[in-house]
Amino acid sequence: MREVIEAIKKGKRFLVTAHVNVEGDALGSQLAMKELLMGMGKEAFILDSDPVPEHYRFLPKASEVSNKFDKVGAFDAAVVLDCPTLNRTGKVRDVIKSQAVPIINIDHHISNEKFGSVNWVEPNASSAGEMVFRLFKETGVKMTKEVALSLYIAILTDTGSFNYDNTSSATHEIAGELLGYGLDPAVVSESVYERRSVKDINLLGLVLATIRVNKSGMIAHLEVTKDMLKKTGADLAKSEGLINFARSIDGVKVAILFKEDQQEKGKINISFRSKGNGDAADVNKIAAIFGGGGHAKASGCIVAGSLKEVKKKVLAQVEASLKDK
Amino acid sequence: MREVIEAIKKGKRFLVTAHVNVEGDALGSQLAMKELLMGMGKEAFILDSDPVPEHYRFLPKASEVSNKFDKVGAFDAAVVLDCPTLNRTGKVRDVIKSQAVPIINIDHHISNEKFGSVNWVEPNASSAGEMVFRLFKETGVKMTKEVALSLYIAILTDTGSFNYDNTSSATHEIAGELLGYGLDPAVVSESVYERRSVKDINLLGLVLATIRVNKSGMIAHLEVTKDMLKKTGADLAKSEGLINFARSIDGVKVAILFKEDQQEKGKINISFRSKGNGDAADVNKIAAIFGGGGHAKASGCIVAGSLKEVKKKVLAQVEASLKDK
Repeated sequence: MREVIEAIKKGKRFLVTAHVNVEGDALGSQLAMKELLMGMGKEAFILDSDPVPEHYRFLPKASEVSNKFDKVGAFDAAVVLDCPTLNRTGKVRDVIKSQAVPIINIDHHISNEKFGSVNWVEPNASSAGEMVFRLFKETGVKMTKEVALSLYIAILTDTGSFNYDNTSSATHEIAGELLGYGLDPAVVSESVYERRSVKDINLLGLVLATIRVNKSGMIAHLEVTKDMLKKTGADLAKSEGLINFARSIDGVKVAILFKEDQQEKGKINISFRSKGNGDAADVNKIAAIFGGGGHAKASGCIVAGSLKEVKKKVLAQVEASLKDK
Repeated sequence: MREVIEAIKKGKRFLVTAHVNVEGDALGSQLAMKELLMGMGKEAFILDSDPVPEHYRFLPKASEVSNKFDKVGAFDAAVVLDCPTLNRTGKVRDVIKSQAVPIINIDHHISNEKFGSVNWVEPNASSAGEMVFRLFKETGVKMTKEVALSLYIAILTDTGSFNYDNTSSATHEIAGELLGYGLDPAVVSESVYERRSVKDINLLGLVLATIRVNKSGMIAHLEVTKDMLKKTGADLAKSEGLINFARSIDGVKVAILFKEDQQEKGKINISFRSKGNGDAADVNKIAAIFGGGGHAKASGCIVAGSLKEVKKKVLAQVEASLKDK
């Protein structure tokens, strides 16, 4: 962390970025990081590969997240947040590479490849937001209610409302301190989680009707077809939580979501989630068999074929993997 | 709190109880309270009107919660947790009344009627569990990992995973301290929230298909019929969260769940939830019109009539109430 602060002191103008398909932690940590840099007397701008999803546009100063690659100008260093590899920044990678500046890598993924000039990686931190919070503490830059909100949302979303195993005592301490800036947890929660459309609910109803559990009760799967999206008009980008309904069934060890690819015919996007008290299956390994990857408890891959074929093949593999254990 | 501790010191054998239809806070706070009393050198037993729901039987020493009214024996005082009125203890009320002993009333509901000999009411506490935690601190009774788990579950469930507005900085501080006893938040979360049956999921699918939003987009409602329960074999007791799907729609101010009564034909059980940043409708007032009640953001009532009639009448009333505001 000290090296990060030293690296910041050396520069004047900073690019701040995070990964493609930005979510709560990527956005919250970037917005707070920009304020930290400005609080340290620096210039800073946020450049992301993808636009801010509509349901996160209520974040303070979210409109300052830019996707304009033609108006970047010179900068002295890049702060990369929440990215295990530089490739995860998407198109921003080329912008950073083109200026050959120092890269400040701030991340909480254990798989981080230390691609930066300075690498601050904390696998025990719940989120990049938790790490930026510590930078505020260490530098003494004054935190505003707006920054507290950005960081609180980063932590709230990356911990699944403090339910995932990345939640530590320190995470709760920080969340408590952030609420102390005058945040109403219910109002924040409604802003983040209660913005479903009727279309989303209709899609959920159709997807739940496809849920199936295998004989042993350990594998549950569901599916999203192109037809369902057409019928409901729902936005697939907001369907992140669908797989959790399969995971939440008592006794299920592995949950699988099959999604027909929206662009390419004959491609199926697959997500895996596992659960268990110490005996959870490693779905990273299962995804790897199909050329995908991720974490032990959450992974994904893309498999070519019809939905029917792919389901058969993948389910057989998961059955076999569970038996091998 | 000091009066509570003084009252405990005076007795030798204690009845511990909570409200009918026990949930996470009632159970967790009772189990921890019993340990506190024993840690203070007292005898204690838990007597509840209703049995522990199956999905909470994994709580440490949950089997010590008794529903046997014939083997109570004499006791010196009753500790009543999480009850705004003594009637909320159900059948236990008569047991307490029959022995004419002091009542120690520990509760966090603002509507608490101070029915005890000693009344410790903290409307700012997230849960009864949070209050029992403070008793451990104040008395210095040693907390075990098991007690920490009971209290953590009390807080987790009563705050909706730290999302409701009863979550304070202090709540997070306490949760952080409880995790420090070696709890894994993901394992606890799975134990509490990921025990759905396929039947529950099938019911959810059917219920979601009934979701409707009114013209203004401010009222969303859904329904559970007897037919759906028969078809799916789902347990209505586990359907608590169904109304949240209606509440979670963007722009909705009032969510309503209509449930056909399982026992009595021609009776509809109705739940209301409201949301809003400072401008939430007071659904307690709406429920009161139909002889029910609750809180400003969560209430309920029972109305006689067919599902169709009752829906028409109640929706008209909610429309009118929203216009009056």
